[in-house]
Amino acid sequence: MKLVDSHSGVEVIERSECLALLQSRFVGRLAVVEGGQPQIYPVNYAMDGDHVIFRTGEGTKFAVSSRGGAVSFEIDDVDLHTRTAWSVVVSGWARVIDDLIRIERLVAVELEPWSAPSHDHWVAINPERITGRRVAPGTRRAAS
Amino acid sequence: MKLVDSHSGVEVIERSECLALLQSRFVGRLAVVEGGQPQIYPVNYAMDGDHVIFRTGEGTKFAVSSRGGAVSFEIDDVDLHTRTAWSVVVSGWARVIDDLIRIERLVAVELEPWSAPSHDHWVAINPERITGRRVAPGTRRAAS
Repeated sequence: MKLVDSHSGVEVIERSECLALLQSRFVGRLAVVEGGQPQIYPVNYAMDGDHVIFRTGEGTKFAVSSRGGAVSFEIDDVDLHTRTAWSVVVSGWARVIDDLIRIERLVAVELEPWSAPSHDHWVAINPERITGRRVAPGTRRAAS
Repeated sequence: MKLVDSHSGVEVIERSECLALLQSRFVGRLAVVEGGQPQIYPVNYAMDGDHVIFRTGEGTKFAVSSRGGAVSFEIDDVDLHTRTAWSVVVSGWARVIDDLIRIERLVAVELEPWSAPSHDHWVAINPERITGRRVAPGTRRAAS
C-alpha cells in the first residue's frame, strides 16, 4: 500500500523500506550544529541494525558525537529515466562507540572513511526518527 | 595545479571548479538549524552567479530564510570506476528573494521543486564560503 500525503502528493516511504534503502547505499550526508551554525559533511557509512555507523577523526563530527549532539543524516537518489526521486532522513543523536566488542564486530564491515587518513573513532547515530519520501517531478510538471 | 592537504591527502577543489561543479548539478542538500536541531533537506537548485537558488513553500526552509538564517548546502558524487569522490559545500545565509525583476529573470530557469505542489518563494544563498574537496579512497585503501 502506498501512503501518499494528500496535500503534497508526496509518497511516504515506510520505515522498513527506509531501512532497506539505507542498507543499499554507502555514502550519505551528516548535518550537525556547531556554534549555532549548520554544518554538512558527506560520510561513508554502514548500517548496524537501525543505527547509522561512520568513522571519524578529531574534529567537528567527533566533538558533536562526544557530547551526544543532535544530528540529521540523509541519503537520496534521482532516477532521470522514471523521473522519480526519493530521500531518507535519520534524525537522532550521535554517540561515540566505546563498546570494544561492538567495535570488533564492526571492524569486519568495510567502512572506508570519506577522507583523511586517521579516523579512529566509531560513531553510531541512535535514531529518533527515520522518514522517507518519494516524489515524481514529472507528474507535477506535466500537470502544471 | 592541484592543491593537496599534506595532512589528509585530500585535494582541495578551487573556487572556480566548485562553481563549475555547482552549475553541473541540479539536486543538493540544504542543512539548517531549527530549534537548535540540525535539519537536512534535498532541494532542486540552480545557480545565479555564485548564489544557490531554490524554491520553497511555507515551512522550515522558508522560516529560516525569512530570518536570514545560516545554512549549509552540499553536493557530492562518487565515481566507482575511478574510485574518487568529491564534494562541494556552500556556507552562507539564506534570503527570501523579494526583487521582482530578479524573480522574473529566474522564472526562465527550469527549477522544479523537489516536492509539494506550491513553492511560491524563491530563496538565494548568499555564500560566505565555497569549499570543495576530492578524495581517492582507492589510493588510501591500497596503501593501508
